[in-house]
Parts: sequence; structure tokens; C-alpha cells
Amino acid sequence: MTPAATPMSATTPASAKSVRWEIDLEEGDGDGGGGGGELERPLLHRRGANTTSQMAVVGANICPIESLDYEIVENDVYKQDWRSRGKAQIFQYQVLKWVLALLVGSLVGLIGFFSNIAVENIAGFKLLLTSNLMLQNRYKVAFLWYISCNAALAAAAAALCAYVSPAAAGSGIPEVKAYLNGVDAPSILAPSTLFVKIVGSVFGVSAGFVLGKEGPMVHTGSCVASLVGQGGSRKYGLTWRWLRYFKNDLDRRDLITCGAAAGVTAAFRAPVGGVLFALEEATSWWRSALLWRTFSTTAVATMVLRFLIEYCRSGNCGLFGNGGLIMFDVSSQVASYTAMDLAAVVLLGVLGGLLGALFNFLLDRILRTYSYINEKGAPWKIVLTVAISLVTSCCSFGLPWMTTCTPCPPEFSASGRCPTIGRSGNFKGFRCPPGQYNAMASIFLNTNDDAIRNLFSGGTYNEFGVSTLLTFFAAVYSLGLVTYGVAVPSGLFIPVILSGASFGRLLGMLFGAPTGLDTGLFALLGAASFLGGTMRMTVSVCVILLELTNDLVLLPLIMLVLLISKTVADCFNKGVYDQIVRMKGLPYLEVHREPCMRSLVAGDVVSGPLITFSTVERVGTVVDTLRRTSHNGFPVIEDEPFAPAPELCGLVLRSHLLVLLQSRTFTSDRVKTGAAEVFRKLAPFDFAKAGSGKGLTVDDLDLTEDDMDTYVDLHPITNRSPYTVMENMSLAKAAVLFRELGLRHMCVVPRTPGRPPVIGILTRHDLMPEYIGGLYPNVLRE
Amino acid sequence: MTPAATPMSATTPASAKSVRWEIDLEEGDGDGGGGGGELERPLLHRRGANTTSQMAVVGANICPIESLDYEIVENDVYKQDWRSRGKAQIFQYQVLKWVLALLVGSLVGLIGFFSNIAVENIAGFKLLLTSNLMLQNRYKVAFLWYISCNAALAAAAAALCAYVSPAAAGSGIPEVKAYLNGVDAPSILAPSTLFVKIVGSVFGVSAGFVLGKEGPMVHTGSCVASLVGQGGSRKYGLTWRWLRYFKNDLDRRDLITCGAAAGVTAAFRAPVGGVLFALEEATSWWRSALLWRTFSTTAVATMVLRFLIEYCRSGNCGLFGNGGLIMFDVSSQVASYTAMDLAAVVLLGVLGGLLGALFNFLLDRILRTYSYINEKGAPWKIVLTVAISLVTSCCSFGLPWMTTCTPCPPEFSASGRCPTIGRSGNFKGFRCPPGQYNAMASIFLNTNDDAIRNLFSGGTYNEFGVSTLLTFFAAVYSLGLVTYGVAVPSGLFIPVILSGASFGRLLGMLFGAPTGLDTGLFALLGAASFLGGTMRMTVSVCVILLELTNDLVLLPLIMLVLLISKTVADCFNKGVYDQIVRMKGLPYLEVHREPCMRSLVAGDVVSGPLITFSTVERVGTVVDTLRRTSHNGFPVIEDEPFAPAPELCGLVLRSHLLVLLQSRTFTSDRVKTGAAEVFRKLAPFDFAKAGSGKGLTVDDLDLTEDDMDTYVDLHPITNRSPYTVMENMSLAKAAVLFRELGLRHMCVVPRTPGRPPVIGILTRHDLMPEYIGGLYPNVLRE
Repeated sequence: MTPAATPMSATTPASAKSVRWEIDLEEGDGDGGGGGGELERPLLHRRGANTTSQMAVVGANICPIESLDYEIVENDVYKQDWRSRGKAQIFQYQVLKWVLALLVGSLVGLIGFFSNIAVENIAGFKLLLTSNLMLQNRYKVAFLWYISCNAALAAAAAALCAYVSPAAAGSGIPEVKAYLNGVDAPSILAPSTLFVKIVGSVFGVSAGFVLGKEGPMVHTGSCVASLVGQGGSRKYGLTWRWLRYFKNDLDRRDLITCGAAAGVTAAFRAPVGGVLFALEEATSWWRSALLWRTFSTTAVATMVLRFLIEYCRSGNCGLFGNGGLIMFDVSSQVASYTAMDLAAVVLLGVLGGLLGALFNFLLDRILRTYSYINEKGAPWKIVLTVAISLVTSCCSFGLPWMTTCTPCPPEFSASGRCPTIGRSGNFKGFRCPPGQYNAMASIFLNTNDDAIRNLFSGGTYNEFGVSTLLTFFAAVYSLGLVTYGVAVPSGLFIPVILSGASFGRLLGMLFGAPTGLDTGLFALLGAASFLGGTMRMTVSVCVILLELTNDLVLLPLIMLVLLISKTVADCFNKGVYDQIVRMKGLPYLEVHREPCMRSLVAGDVVSGPLITFSTVERVGTVVDTLRRTSHNGFPVIEDEPFAPAPELCGLVLRSHLLVLLQSRTFTSDRVKTGAAEVFRKLAPFDFAKAGSGKGLTVDDLDLTEDDMDTYVDLHPITNRSPYTVMENMSLAKAAVLFRELGLRHMCVVPRTPGRPPVIGILTRHDLMPEYIGGLYPNVLRE
Repeated sequence: MTPAATPMSATTPASAKSVRWEIDLEEGDGDGGGGGGELERPLLHRRGANTTSQMAVVGANICPIESLDYEIVENDVYKQDWRSRGKAQIFQYQVLKWVLALLVGSLVGLIGFFSNIAVENIAGFKLLLTSNLMLQNRYKVAFLWYISCNAALAAAAAALCAYVSPAAAGSGIPEVKAYLNGVDAPSILAPSTLFVKIVGSVFGVSAGFVLGKEGPMVHTGSCVASLVGQGGSRKYGLTWRWLRYFKNDLDRRDLITCGAAAGVTAAFRAPVGGVLFALEEATSWWRSALLWRTFSTTAVATMVLRFLIEYCRSGNCGLFGNGGLIMFDVSSQVASYTAMDLAAVVLLGVLGGLLGALFNFLLDRILRTYSYINEKGAPWKIVLTVAISLVTSCCSFGLPWMTTCTPCPPEFSASGRCPTIGRSGNFKGFRCPPGQYNAMASIFLNTNDDAIRNLFSGGTYNEFGVSTLLTFFAAVYSLGLVTYGVAVPSGLFIPVILSGASFGRLLGMLFGAPTGLDTGLFALLGAASFLGGTMRMTVSVCVILLELTNDLVLLPLIMLVLLISKTVADCFNKGVYDQIVRMKGLPYLEVHREPCMRSLVAGDVVSGPLITFSTVERVGTVVDTLRRTSHNGFPVIEDEPFAPAPELCGLVLRSHLLVLLQSRTFTSDRVKTGAAEVFRKLAPFDFAKAGSGKGLTVDDLDLTEDDMDTYVDLHPITNRSPYTVMENMSLAKAAVLFRELGLRHMCVVPRTPGRPPVIGILTRHDLMPEYIGGLYPNVLRE
């Protein structure tokens, strides 16, 4: 480290400048603004250094997080690599990119299918035995069997989550969303997470919880994509040489986007909906080229699913292999609707928005309470899960118990479809005499998919009474809230659809007479309004619902209800996934600029002391610095004797420094060795970014005491084209640059000559509103 | 202008540096690349200045083009404006943004509906009269009526295009695409273009050309959005004060994106397809927030359409108001398909890709030939159009004439549906005796929508013979090619769908026996494969076709065929719209980086001489410079006595300079006046960007000779936060920054101290491959 570039507090002049400039502007305050009073406003002043958390809670375990780096590191190594790629390599890369995406699609399709079959069989067996016991009037045994079966499955799922992979609990969509925004927490996409996510989700859904497997499928898809892109383990020498071009954050991001889309597709059998989900909710960056690749991935996933379902139709997939994936049949042909119908739909949208916003608010509170319990340790997590399971079992068995029987509609009882024997069908007998059915049991003592199918079913106006629907709605809404936070992979789609559908059907019955719309259609619209109110997705939910119901005539109504519910809910709080991202402490870069940033310039937030390297640096200094700090990027300054005055050569990454040091390309004097020397010892592939949480650390270095006094030439690994901003660049515009290009480091250079060539580095944490608010409390309050 | 910043050729050192660096790298060429031979490669050398065209052919008239500027100009004026906006203004802006989008949706829905009704009535009247004359056996009169009707309509459309608005000819999608990429040609979105586009499109479609109204609807939607956003004319004082917040390129772009999506929606009644079309094909920038707004716009457009169609069902819309918008009914329930079916589909995809690529190739040649004719003047355009109309009429009347009659299928003739009387229906009588029909007339002597409906119809295996389909395919494929370039608003969707559908149906008949798929389904898949092969859209075409046919079961097959045809066609050439954008000379910024740019740095392409202003500049110098150059942005240098050494203050725009000069805020000495002085004379709104092709010019300035020797303070209008790159930044990365942020100017700053603070400005033209190829021919060849 040269004396010119030792730790310094170069930000003071910049800060002073911004203050002067602020006053300038106040003088010019001609016709708008607060007038004279504003001149008395206290001047900006800084408070402390960067204190925002670099750790996040992922699955209730504190976990160190890092940023991903989508910038192309244009150093000599990269140029060498890029030049050495012939046409064959480029073709191989292109083909492999597609092969990997399609492989991800098929794998996710397979996983989706098998987890579905597993759920169908486990839950089906459980429900069949319960129903058989009840047919023999052994109600207590049936109840005990049911409740203990659920508790055992719940305990198994919770134990997996608590002991094997805490990051697998919950939906997983917030984590995937954060990853695609550039936040890397090692455990999010680990193989153990994938395993627990799949198995835990199967157990959790089979245990009769009010939760879905849709969110977990998205996470599963992303994990699969991450593993496929990684292609085995480099540590054990298992990696495939062909995959070397994919060892960077950009290609991984693309693949994981495809994986997330395939996950939605596998969950809902909605290929277009999957693409739109990835586009609308999951990703933060999108390119047109990605649209096509994502679409192909979801197409493959659909085809795999379709093929397997065909295969199962012939009865090869166990006891209950027939139902499989949800595909509802709302075959109400609404050619036209009246103003009264529209009014009912608008009301449904408004109420859905309100209840959705309330759901988010309550979920936030409950999750905060649960985190106290979950933090106490793994056994507590299991206890909490089993407790919730017991409550759920009591509700789903007890509420039908207290419900009176309803006589079967004549058209159904005549055809022998009421009450239904066995597992599926619209009308459950429960304790009722022949010719009658238990409405509550038909929706509650069932798998969630069947419950939704029953609620959506058209032409069955009086199947569920008002009181049944009201009780069911209240129970599902509350159970959905208390279930999400337990240590089980749990999606939010199903609880929201369930409560929305029951609420919609309820409203449809109340509005029954004046509108000509079917109650099944009302249930669908209710589900849409709740989805809009909690998740705040529009186009993707709309398309997913269309693909689920296979009826495009409903499109305008679904659109209307989604728009209204999202607008209403947006007045109160953020979408549920954004809320969870925030609560987990993941530093998510928002797309919209914080207005407060307009009053600040880039120089105001860079935090000292800045550590720079000289282009040819003493090895001891480099090693010391790496050991002493946790920074991931260091500016490299070209100074004497290589340049007459200090100038910015570029930026060097910690990981590249470690690889270079490991290769021990040292010289005894302070001279340039050039790139050739490096390439003799290292291939470009050695600098490829290791998977999340892997890679060399400074403790892995094997250097002698003598090495410390030699020199290392950083030219070959220095990124000569780092993105820079001037210190007087408005922070809002710097943030736009940072986010749009997906940067990890951004150099702040001085405006006036005669200063050190770089005065600081901006990172993701410097752009977090919390950090800026800490520095300049009165700016944030503006 | 200060001496320090006079025109200079500051790029030479940068260029020299890049060369040195190039050699550095060659030395380091360790294991890959061409080895020693590469050292002999001639060094980079520049050729000439920026010679890429700043003019483009829009509608066969040469038209000066400008770039749009999506950067936020953070000068004192902007900050003042932003600070003066209270909560009420922000709310008003938010509400207005939505109101405008929904207004655009409704207007486009209305226009789409009325142009449809107009076409239905004009073409319906024409065809009905022809058919009546033929029923009276007055064949010659019928032919003369038919051909002269078509020629008259064609001549009217061509005259409108040639004399009123040449930019209205053609599809319009390439122009909209270029606009949304940041290329502004004044006539693209002018009111006259809108008028001609609507009326000309109605005439053109009614004239029986093989062209569609879908592309023109997209252009119409964009024009409507542009006009709504403009909100009247500022020149005549008709603008609405509330709209002042929308006087910038960013908000205009958003609104025009909504308009384009609404256009697709109105054309196909496909709201989700419209959103995806805008996302996949039209826009170059996309934000998640826009997805929602676009979706709402298309939802409104659909609802307007649906309401009006309902209204027309009761027979209020003229003679032929019933058919209205296309909505095909392919109700073949394919639950499963065999390997043989898949093989047929794959073959269809491959052939569709090949024929699609051939279509693009031939279209390019034909358009180049036509441009010679069109350039000769308006009368020639009309002659060409009428000639093509005559050929089309002869084909559509003559080919059925030569076709033999087919006996009606018994089930249709029994129910009186064959041959059909009047206009609609599957079986046209033409000259045939009762009980027989003319297959060729059923598809050719009809509106294009009806022809597509007939081709798509399921369960009518033998309706069209192999020879009929083959002839029709050949005729439509060739007519589609020769029609596009004539001076009529003409979409490419319909010709491509028509030829694709006939080709698919033909293939379906040839494959008939071994596959279980319906020939109507084959026609649909053929249309998909041709759309994939020419337009290279995937997701949006898929969704549009789904929304048209209302059958989601077809999804996997459509996806498969689209993927294959696009992949095949991409091996040969670019999509048809990209090709037309290129041919029209519009400087479209591609999303992918040209690989050649990696070998260059930003300093290599900036073209001198650079013109800068001092922060307080002599008025005469400013006026002279504005008159002498056509540059739109000038760096502003802070120098003595305001700063000890020259430093970059920011960037000032020509339009802002003109407004400031017009206000005559001058001082006799070289002193800062500050922002207050400017705000006394001007409101922030005065600096708002005028509509395309409007705004002040330097000749509008009204300055005396004495004014020329006074000084003007540029501080208040200088953008203090321009995006900058270092001269040694790799050109590829600079281009990414430029494109991702939608910039118009990017300052290149020196790396070494002691040089002028800015050495050049990069604009869109400096990043065009043509320009770079001209400068460094051997780089492009790499």
C-alpha cells in the first residue's frame, strides 16, 4: 500500500461541497417550496459509519450474506479467456445454455409430479383409513388416527427443517426473489435445502396443514437450477469441464430464473403463468432473450408433466395417482353480465383488497412473535409445529362434527354421487345418514386441492350453506396465518386461494338473487381478489387462474377484480413477499428511487477508511489487508514508477487476489511481471467464481514468511473498466446506475484535480435507506 | 468559450493508450488464440469522423431523426420543480398517469371496434353485391364491379398515404419499436399519421389486399397514446396545465408502451397477448410497474370492445356488424397425441421456420426494389398500389373461376349450410350448381378474417382439396410479399397467418392418415410456425393464438412448434421487424453487445472536435455555437475565476439553452447570477421537453447585437450529475451503461490528471456497429 493511498477520510470535502450546494439552491428558491423557513433547517451532518446489517436471518438462522456481481470483470484474464474462445466454444456455450435450461425444466417437472403423487398417496391413505373407521362408527379411533397421523407427519417435516436445513422453512419465494435481486446467502440454494424442501413439503401438505406446495416448488425449481448450473462439486473434482463458462453470477441468475418459472409451471401446470410469475414477481432484471429461454423451460416442464399424467391415467401410480395436479373446471359460460354483476365484482375486489392487506399485517405480527419461539432452538420449532398441527386437526375434524347434515340435491343422489364413497367427490358423508352429506367435511376434511375444486365447482348453488362458508372462511384465514411461520416448507398460494374462494362463494350466495353469476365463479373471483390483495401480482395471477380453469371468457372479470384488490391493498402495506424479504433482513434493492437520495450526492455516503492497492503491491500488505478486512473489492492505483501521477487502474476482487496469491506469482522487486507469467501458472477457469459459500479464503493460503516481502503484480487481474461515478453525482442517479447494471462495487472518483484518483467505493449497503437514514436522519424525514 | 476548452483532438492519447494495451495483451497470449501470427496484425487505426446517418427513411421520406433522452436532467430547475411538488401534486401525477393509461385503453378499444365495423360493412357490401350479381349469372359485371371496387379503395388508401402522411404506410410496428428504443422521428407519431393509419387501414383491408389491420392497430395505439400524453398543442395554448408532468420522454415512453399493447389487444381481442407483445417485441426497456399499467390498459380496451360487441349483437351496427373481431373456434379436444403426431408437428415447425426465413429474405429484396419506385413520387406510389390491387383481384376472382366444384358434405347440405347464401359461412357457392361449393372461393373470395376462420375450422377434413390449398398457399405467400411495400397501412400478421394456416392444413391432409390430429388444428399450428419463422416472437404469439382460439389444451403443441420454427429461422436471418428497422436506417441500439467493442475503449470512438461551454459564457459564443452545430448537449466546464482549475460542472442541453437565451437573463460582467434570477423569469414548466419535432430553434431567438457581448450564467440549467465513463472504459461496458439507462449523452472523462476535464461525448451514433466498423475496419472483421 503506498502512502498516497493509505486509509483516509476523503469524504469530508465532498460532504462540505454538498452542503454549500444545498444552500445555493435555497437562495434560488423562487416561487415554490417552504420559503424562508427552510433556510433555518439544520445542515446535513453525518452520523457514524456503515452500520446496516451484512447478516440476514434466513430460516431463523443468522447467516452472512454477500452481494452477487453481475458486472463483467474485464481484466487481462477475462480478455485472454474471451479471445481464446473459438467458434466451437461459443457454439458449445450456446448449446449448453439451452441444454441446461431444458434439463432444469424436465427435472422440475419430474419433481413436481413425484411430490404430487407422494402427497396424493400419503394423504389419500390417511383420509381413506379415517373414512373407513368412521363408516364402522369408530369415531374416536378415527379421530385419534387422523390427529396422530397429522402430528407425526408434521413432526417429521419440522425435524427435517429444524435439524437439516432451517432455510427450507417457509415459502422460499422471498429468498429466491432476494437472490435474483443480487443477495447471496449460502444456504438458500444448497443441496440440503433442496432435499428438505421437497420431502418436508410432501410431509407438510400430507399432514393436512393449511399450506400449499406452490411456493416451495418455486424454491425447489431454483435450487435445482442452481445445482445443475454448478454441475457437481469442484472441491471433489466432480465438476464438468464444459460447465466452466457457467461459473459466473450472470449465467447462474439466468438459469435460476428459468428454474423459478419451471417451479410455478410444475405447481400449477401453467407454463405461461410460470413465465409471467418469474417476470413479474421473481426477477429484478429481465432481458428479452430470457423470455424465450424461460418459456422453453416451462414448455418442457409441462410436457414432462403431461406425459407422466398420461402414463398414470392407466393406474400405474399407486392408489391415488389419478388426481394429480390441480386443474379446475369452472365451466360457467358467462356470455354477458349486468351492471349489478359488475357492482358485486367491484365489492368483492375492494373487500378482497382489505382482507388481503389485513392478512399481510397480521402475518407480519405473527411471524415476529414466532421468531422468538423459533430462536430458542430446534426442539421448540418442532413443538410449535406439532401444536399448530393439533389445532388444525381439531378444526378440520371438529368443525364437521358440529355441522348438521344436509339432504343431498336430488339430481346428485339419483346418480349415486351423493354422498360420495371413498376419497374424491363433492359430497362427503362423514357422520350423516344415507341421502345426506356434511358440507363442512366436504371442504375441510379433504386435501386442499380437492377443497378448492369443490369450492370452485359450478352449478351447485346450495351445496354449502352461508354458515358453513363463514365458519370455513374464518378457520382457514386464521389457520393460514398461524401456519406460515412454522418450521415446514409452506406456500401461501393455497391458504390465500382457499380463504378467497370461500369468501367469494359466501359473497356470491349473499348476492345470489340479483346477479346471474354462478357461485363457483364467485369463488374463483374471490380467490383472485385475495391473491391480488396479499401477493399484489396481477398479470401472472390472472394467467395462472386462466390456465387453472381453462376458460378465457372469465378474463375481463378476473382482471377487474385483481386491479381493484391490488389498488386497495397497496394503500395499506406492501406485498407479502416484499414484507418477508424485509423482515428477514435481506438487503433488497428496490426499483424505485428513494426520494431522499435526491438531496445527497455519491460522495456523501461512501464510508471510510478506503483501502487501495498499488498496481504492484507487497504481498505482506495484501495478505494483511485481506485478513484485516472483509471487503470484496479494492481499487488499484497506478503510481510511480509506472505512472507520473497516481491514477485509477481499476478494481481487483478479493477472490481473484486469493487465487493469484495461491499461485505464488511473486517477484523480489517492484516490477511488472505481465500477464504471461500469470497464465503460465493459472488458466482463466481458475478465476471462475466458485459456488455460493465456497471458494478460497485467506486462511487457505499457504505462504511463507519470506513470501511476505516479495511483490505481486496486480495488473493481470485488475478490472480495467470499473463503473465510476463522480463524487458530486446525485445519489439517486448513482443508485439507478448501480441497480440497473447489477453492480457490486462502484468507484467514486473526485471531481477536482489534484486529489487521490478514487475517494471511495459504493456497495449495496451504502444504498440501503436504513443506512442513509442513519447517516442523515433529517434527509429521510423529508 | 474558454481557450482551455476549444475544439481539440483529445482522443489521440486515448487511442494510443489502447493500442499499447492491446500489445500488452498479445504478449500475455499464453495458451489460446492464434499465437505468434497475431503480433503481425496491423495496429488499430481510425478512419474519418462520425459518418453514420442521422437521417432515416420513414415512410419513404427522408426524415431527420433524434434520440430520446431518458436521463433525469438534475439541474437546479429540476430540483426546484421537484422540491416544489407537494403531496397533492404527487398524488395528482399518480392519478393522472393511470387516468391517461385507461383513457388510451378506451380510445384504442373504440378505434379498434369502429375500424372493424367499417371494414365489415365496406367489404361486406362489396362482396354481397358481387355475389348477388353472380347469382344472376352476370359474371363479367360481377368481376368488373369487384375489381374496380378494390382498385378504387386501394387508390384512395394510397393517395392518403402518399400525399398526407407517407409515414403511415406499412405495418408501423418497426417504427414503434424504434421509438421505444429511443429513436425519435417527428412524423412517426404525428396526428396526420394517426388519421391516415386508421382510414387507410380500413380502405386497404376492405380493398381485399392480402394484409392485416393488426400491425396498423399497434401503430394507431401508439399514436393515440402520444397524442393523449401531449394533451393538445402548446403552440396554440391548448395544453392542459395538469399534463406538465408528462412533458418528458420517460412518461411518454410508458404511455406509448401502453398504447402499443392496447393496439394488439384491440386487434386480436387478446389482453394478455397484448401485454406480452409489448414486452417481447415492442419495448427495449421494461419495469415491473409498467407491467401492471399495461395490463390495466389492455383490460380496459377489452372491456370497451366487449361492451360494444354486446351492443352490436342486437343489430345496431349496420349490415355486417355481427362478425366483428376475429375469435376462432378450434374446438378439437386433443387429450393426447402420439409420437407420429409429434413428428408431424416437428416437421411443420422446421418447414415453417425455413419458409418464414425465406419470406423475410424475399421481403427485404422486394422492399428494396419498391423503394426505387416509391422514391419517384406520390403518383408512382398510387400506380404501384393499384397495380398490386389488380393482381390481387384477378387472383381472388380468377383462381376460384378455374377451380372445379366440390359436392357438399351430406351433413352440411342437409342442414342447409352448404353452399352458404349471403356473406358468411364455410361453403361459398360461386359458380357451382346447388349442392356443390367452390373450395377456392370459400377461402379466397372473402375477407381475410373469414378465410382464416374457414381454414382453422375443425371437423371439416375434406373441405379443401390438396390442390386448392397448394394454390392458395402459393398465391397468398407471394401476394403477401408484394403487398407489404405498397403505400397502404398494412400489417404482416394476417398474410403470415393465412399462408401458415393453408400450409399447415395442406401438411395435415398429407399426413392425414397416420395422425389423429384435426386438419383445423394443423392449420393453427402452421400459422404458429409461420409466425415464429417470420416475426420470431414466442410467448406473445403463443398467448395471442391461445386467446384467439380459446383452447388451452393446445398450448404444449403451439409452444413446441414456435420454438422449433424460431430456432430454425434464426439460423438464417433476423426477425422481419428488425430487418425493416435496419432497412429504414433507424439507429436501433441492440441489446446484445457487439463483440468487436471489447477490443476498443470509450476514448477510441469519441469524435472531435469537442465543443464545451464555460459555466458563465458569452452569449455571442453560445448563439454562434448553436447556429454552427446541431449538437444537443454540451459539457459545461467550471474554470477561473469560479474554480482554481478547470473541472466538469455538468452537461447542458440545447433546448434548455434556447429557453434560457429566450428569457434574456443576461449580465454585463462574467459573474454568477444564481438560480433565483432565472426562476424570476421562468417556471420549471418552461423547460419541459416539447413534443417531437416542436420546440424552439435558434432562429426563433430574438436577440440584439448588444446582447451578444453580455454573459449568461449556465449553472441553473446545467445537469450536475451527467453519467460519465473513463476514457479507458471498455466500449462494450460503456455501451451497456448507455443502453440500460437509456442515455442520450455520456461524457468521457480522462484517466490521467492534468488533462481537460472532459475529452468527449458518446452518443447513440458512436455506438452503432456501422460507425465503429468505419473507424476500425479490422476490428469489426474479427
